[in-house]
Amino acid sequence: MRKKTSGIVTLITDFGLMGEYAGAMKGAILNVNPRCQVVDITHQVAAQDVLQASLVLKNTYPYYPVGTVHIVVVDPGVGTQRRPVILKKEGHFFVGPDNGVFTFVLSGGKNEGYEIARQKLFLSPLSPTFHGRDIFAPVAGHLSLGMDPRRFGPRMEQFTRLRWPRPEVKGKQWVGRILFADAFGNLITNISREEYGFLIGGRPWQIKGKGWCIHRLQETYNDVQPGQALALFGSAGLLEIAVNRGNAQLALGLKPGDSISINRL
Amino acid sequence: MRKKTSGIVTLITDFGLMGEYAGAMKGAILNVNPRCQVVDITHQVAAQDVLQASLVLKNTYPYYPVGTVHIVVVDPGVGTQRRPVILKKEGHFFVGPDNGVFTFVLSGGKNEGYEIARQKLFLSPLSPTFHGRDIFAPVAGHLSLGMDPRRFGPRMEQFTRLRWPRPEVKGKQWVGRILFADAFGNLITNISREEYGFLIGGRPWQIKGKGWCIHRLQETYNDVQPGQALALFGSAGLLEIAVNRGNAQLALGLKPGDSISINRL
Amino acid sequence: MRKKTSGIVTLITDFGLMGEYAGAMKGAILNVNPRCQVVDITHQVAAQDVLQASLVLKNTYPYYPVGTVHIVVVDPGVGTQRRPVILKKEGHFFVGPDNGVFTFVLSGGKNEGYEIARQKLFLSPLSPTFHGRDIFAPVAGHLSLGMDPRRFGPRMEQFTRLRWPRPEVKGKQWVGRILFADAFGNLITNISREEYGFLIGGRPWQIKGKGWCIHRLQETYNDVQPGQALALFGSAGLLEIAVNRGNAQLALGLKPGDSISINRL
Repeated sequence: MRKKTSGIVTLITDFGLMGEYAGAMKGAILNVNPRCQVVDITHQVAAQDVLQASLVLKNTYPYYPVGTVHIVVVDPGVGTQRRPVILKKEGHFFVGPDNGVFTFVLSGGKNEGYEIARQKLFLSPLSPTFHGRDIFAPVAGHLSLGMDPRRFGPRMEQFTRLRWPRPEVKGKQWVGRILFADAFGNLITNISREEYGFLIGGRPWQIKGKGWCIHRLQETYNDVQPGQALALFGSAGLLEIAVNRGNAQLALGLKPGDSISINRL
Repeated sequence: MRKKTSGIVTLITDFGLMGEYAGAMKGAILNVNPRCQVVDITHQVAAQDVLQASLVLKNTYPYYPVGTVHIVVVDPGVGTQRRPVILKKEGHFFVGPDNGVFTFVLSGGKNEGYEIARQKLFLSPLSPTFHGRDIFAPVAGHLSLGMDPRRFGPRMEQFTRLRWPRPEVKGKQWVGRILFADAFGNLITNISREEYGFLIGGRPWQIKGKGWCIHRLQETYNDVQPGQALALFGSAGLLEIAVNRGNAQLALGLKPGDSISINRL
Repeated sequence: MRKKTSGIVTLITDFGLMGEYAGAMKGAILNVNPRCQVVDITHQVAAQDVLQASLVLKNTYPYYPVGTVHIVVVDPGVGTQRRPVILKKEGHFFVGPDNGVFTFVLSGGKNEGYEIARQKLFLSPLSPTFHGRDIFAPVAGHLSLGMDPRRFGPRMEQFTRLRWPRPEVKGKQWVGRILFADAFGNLITNISREEYGFLIGGRPWQIKGKGWCIHRLQETYNDVQPGQALALFGSAGLLEIAVNRGNAQLALGLKPGDSISINRL
């Protein structure tokens, strides 16, 4: 192992955990580098939800050692002209389709991009429907061995960036959206700590639903009584609606995709 | 790697498999020790079910090599005054909140406990809602490198122990409870082999439900005809109600939380 | 590590991801060989579905390095007379019950089989209901260390092979079956590329359902408009019914077990 790699390859996909997709990919990585450690981040990104994958990537990669290879395969356009790419940034390597999965990683700092073009590194025959196994996995294996990203194909300057669904101001309301619910039923919104600070600052506000009302931020779930609704900034820096020792998704009748209004008083 | 560690870190959480929680934790472990092997035991403990986590821990850790670090993060009180702790026992290291997750590991033998207090080992900024990533993961990484548990904080003597819901004697009935159902629909109860032997011994008994009756122990699922209900002691030493080649939860109309009565004849 | 092993052990089971079964097995492997890398392929084979496990194995093992040990534990007959076995083939080692889980690996090439009989390698006490943990895991650990398969027990010549549910010809119809649906809702059938080529060749055909009709093969999901039904040969070489950027299982009203008719025109 050359010195700039950690020997770790992580996986984010929407393959689910049944069937062979994730297992075949891991094999194709390990076949190139049997000594690397393959780490599942998640295989349960919502099917074809490129932005969700990008958010999971943003919230996990900085915790890994420099020199780690992160594969993201949420790839509804597999087999079409979208490019397979390598992004090198902050010492990390990112591998996947150029369809927006790297949106939240691209902002700030230097992005060094390469189009993956060197077909002799691909598995053969190349399946038109499973580039995760036949392109991204062996490429990640070679990167984890220390192969220079310049050896995979030509430099590229522009990556596809998708629009983040940002909160909107509507009169005295600030309308965000619930992005997803975690396993506890906590509802994670698209309202970041930075935007909240800028727009709301210290002014009074409330969020209301059927039978519940939240009017301040908490630090931890336990700052309210068990069963009560609360709002806090979660571990990824996004506003989260939760119920202490309960399931906000079930208790408050809200779900991913719903909008959520902060009313300034 | 110093000699008293196996280089293995295991994970038991209630984070589920969607989203970033488990993946971020694994990164924070590997960032400290890129050479350790991180092993998922389960991330699907029922949300906030501390006792279930403790049972899974008890039923898995003895199979791992001595010197393994076991992290358990089922932590409904995260951010409150419950202490982050290290337990050293039988050459294994256990890391998690002192909220009862170690209940079933504490009985018998010598327990060597330390409160985790050395904040410079924590990630910074420290999230008040995700100590799994910001405290327990880096601590486990350092333990897997061989750091002495005494270096993390002061010795502690008393761990939180939760009450195990033990079976009760009601006249000629012995009333237990179904703790959970596995992926096969087998219903695992809180009746251990030891307690069964003590109370029932060789005396005749029956367990009855709608359309089914069990009146003896079997050794294997195949000791009855396909589709028939049976009782046996499972691989963890607890009484289990099952249906050969079938799903007892669906077929018998029982579910976790239900009581189950052994009637002495 | 001796030279003929990759140091990798893969797992295919129907244990699900809750509870302790998979975690206890991993421990029992690592306890024998703490340096091997244990890789989850899937623990979500449908309960007791031996043929599905065999198909996942066939579609994953060739991607792993030679010298990998593949454990398959879908074992409804655990504790009965079915034999625990090792199969060596193409430099790979397969470990599991001889109940048909190796059906799709046995065809073609040389099969070198051994019955696992050397009880001193098993965990003790031996649970009659969990040979995955107590027999297959330690055996795999020893194989990953380079132990010769001949040292586990006597040579065996015949493995159990199950019948693959092959498509049937009914007049001008060719009737296959949907084996399973993947996480995208793609419906994977039992119609292989070889059989299709032999029976259908270049002749015109159609597959019809309520409100949809497919009459040609595509190469990728994107060869039709979003929302439209299509047929293609998936990455494992089986005919697949899909909906571009959609979920065929939900949209077309088909599910695993249903038959699917190709009508020759």
